[in-house]
Amino acid sequence: MKLFRKLISLDEALKAVLAYAKPAETEEIGFDDALNRVLAEDVCSPADSPPFDRAAMDGYAIRAEDSFGASPNNPVLLKLIKSQSEKGKESRVEEVEIGDGECFSIQTGMALPKGSNAVVMLEYTKERGSELEIFKPVTPGKNVSFKGEDVKKGEVVLKEGKRLRAHDVGMLASLFKRSVKVYKRAKFGIMSTGDELLNPEEAEPYEGEKRIADVNSYVLAGLTEAIASSYRIGIVRDNYDKIKTAISESLAGDSDCHCDGLLISGGSSVGKRDFIADAVEDLGELVFQGVGIRPGEPTGFGIVNGKPVFILPGYPVAAISAFELLVRPFLYAVHGVREERRGFFAIARKKIPSAVGRTDFVRVRLVCKENENEYFVEPIRVSGSGILSSMTKSDGFVVIEENKEGVEAEEKVEVDVWE
Amino acid sequence: MKLFRKLISLDEALKAVLAYAKPAETEEIGFDDALNRVLAEDVCSPADSPPFDRAAMDGYAIRAEDSFGASPNNPVLLKLIKSQSEKGKESRVEEVEIGDGECFSIQTGMALPKGSNAVVMLEYTKERGSELEIFKPVTPGKNVSFKGEDVKKGEVVLKEGKRLRAHDVGMLASLFKRSVKVYKRAKFGIMSTGDELLNPEEAEPYEGEKRIADVNSYVLAGLTEAIASSYRIGIVRDNYDKIKTAISESLAGDSDCHCDGLLISGGSSVGKRDFIADAVEDLGELVFQGVGIRPGEPTGFGIVNGKPVFILPGYPVAAISAFELLVRPFLYAVHGVREERRGFFAIARKKIPSAVGRTDFVRVRLVCKENENEYFVEPIRVSGSGILSSMTKSDGFVVIEENKEGVEAEEKVEVDVWE
Repeated sequence: MKLFRKLISLDEALKAVLAYAKPAETEEIGFDDALNRVLAEDVCSPADSPPFDRAAMDGYAIRAEDSFGASPNNPVLLKLIKSQSEKGKESRVEEVEIGDGECFSIQTGMALPKGSNAVVMLEYTKERGSELEIFKPVTPGKNVSFKGEDVKKGEVVLKEGKRLRAHDVGMLASLFKRSVKVYKRAKFGIMSTGDELLNPEEAEPYEGEKRIADVNSYVLAGLTEAIASSYRIGIVRDNYDKIKTAISESLAGDSDCHCDGLLISGGSSVGKRDFIADAVEDLGELVFQGVGIRPGEPTGFGIVNGKPVFILPGYPVAAISAFELLVRPFLYAVHGVREERRGFFAIARKKIPSAVGRTDFVRVRLVCKENENEYFVEPIRVSGSGILSSMTKSDGFVVIEENKEGVEAEEKVEVDVWE
Repeated sequence: MKLFRKLISLDEALKAVLAYAKPAETEEIGFDDALNRVLAEDVCSPADSPPFDRAAMDGYAIRAEDSFGASPNNPVLLKLIKSQSEKGKESRVEEVEIGDGECFSIQTGMALPKGSNAVVMLEYTKERGSELEIFKPVTPGKNVSFKGEDVKKGEVVLKEGKRLRAHDVGMLASLFKRSVKVYKRAKFGIMSTGDELLNPEEAEPYEGEKRIADVNSYVLAGLTEAIASSYRIGIVRDNYDKIKTAISESLAGDSDCHCDGLLISGGSSVGKRDFIADAVEDLGELVFQGVGIRPGEPTGFGIVNGKPVFILPGYPVAAISAFELLVRPFLYAVHGVREERRGFFAIARKKIPSAVGRTDFVRVRLVCKENENEYFVEPIRVSGSGILSSMTKSDGFVVIEENKEGVEAEEKVEVDVWE
């Protein structure tokens, strides 16, 4: 009886895979190209931010003490300092100094002029020629953003391993940090294998022809792109030599495609066409073949030319399951992503059965009725790895660990939402 | 006393903005370019999927009836049908027909040969020359994925308004749907205004110079890119004519930049430099100026050349608040996105105060202790729109509606997690 070489648990597989996750190289790029990239350095602030005390509101910079006792019926009168500069240009705030009984018009974000210690909001003032009426007192520091209030000089503002969002890029801009060190996006080749596959960009099956579209190379490329870069190699036929050649060529240092790793799908089961694991073993080292996940059992991993090769199932849902459970953690490790994935907690509407001894990857829909503040989880299908609609109809997935005998109705579970 | 022209509620502002949201044009693109694009048509399946009954496991296609009574001690013996084709090539399944007492080797995903109605798994078989021993009976339909089990011919598989994920692109591939109609990504110009701004790509402030980096054009471009396309116009100085010219040029149909809309930040408060609202009114229609959100009150909206112009605050956090509360819903409407944003529900660790009469945008951190299956929310800072670190340290935001007097400790709130 022919068997999978050895079926290992998801935990063992994950450990094995992560042991081969060499950190990607780093590169220095302009901060404005850094959106969605992963930081390869701690970013410290070279200076206080804000760099000076500044107005937090539109109004007038004053000495707070001058406003004490002001009221609508008994306004305080201050002298308006006007521009010293040429006509039509406003005075630069650097040139201004506020003395007793003086004030200076100021907008949100502008530096406080020397001598002032508070801002009185526009709404509580009225200009009368060269003077200003103030209807409400302010305390020292009122409506002022203080130097270093946001970030102190030398403080780490963005940590290594952070995937940069729009506001993180804004933080880099605010620090005048023109370039940042990020992890290079590794290039993963995506290969589909199978005589039954047609390239959907090129051909359709004729009436009655029992062939199907290559789905996996598109799905796996899309999933990979979120973190690394992908290169679609396309379909390789079920021929041992062709597969072996395709693997070694795409991982050769001098090849056109020159991949840092491979995701190969199809042909990874124990059938007669189980060429890929053999080819990987032949070319390098087969680390494992067969993982206790469902769907996704015929998943393998090996090293060729020192580079990782994932052998993924042919069925799309099984390939996605293996990607989420093994490839994504690997890509995160390679690219230095320190963030955890965040799941929703939601309540299972009904029992989700699962066998002890394997990890289940269950596609689920999230349901939230109006005015309820709780999500409920509905499994879409517990088995059927050929069922791509179980993915497109789902909002995410629930992982049922191997030592768990399913999820009970009303039990709280964690849902990973599709990115 | 100079005032905002009229402070309106977020609901009013949202209604006004959405009334001007004209759906983007559509375009036909290749399915393999459609990742993250928004569908502008319902996609129906042109055929059943799978297109034929196929093996769900590796093994042998048989007539189930032939296996009845099989056991490890009493295996059933079937005749293996071998290839009729040339040597070295496997027989194509279309050419095979299974008769009584016959079987055919089959891999997961392959079509069932004529005459067979079940698959017996490899693990329960053993080949003996031209015969096969079967150790376990199967029922008809066992280990078979039936024609149309995934999707029936004519069924809507992807709905208009869906943002396409990797597995949706896979679904398009599986249907041989080579091109799809999607909404064109509208091009939004991003302009920062302010004499105090420096372009961080070009200059740094000299020692003691009270100028700051343009942050908003990077942040707003990054946020916009998630759904539309952005064009960074850069910094325009606080000069009425320059601002007016910049707006009208970027919205002119024949300009180089040729934007479908504008996001202008800075200068939107009631100060002396309140040029943008005036310029918008001068060039077209100012719909509103001043929204009861905090931060983000000095937010306005107008129409120039029939195109939307958002006037956003100069402070980055206020600009982000206005973006999330007004611009994002507008971009979703323009691009036909039907999905709701999904928030987490989480429990407030402590009271989050908020004044009735305005909508608060509170940056929060999500905390989840190990083995707890509940997220807790910690507000990072309730005010301080200059405090960019309140964004970079946060996981998302909570919106406190205007009729709510804050959030109580232990209350459940919805958290929008940063994309």
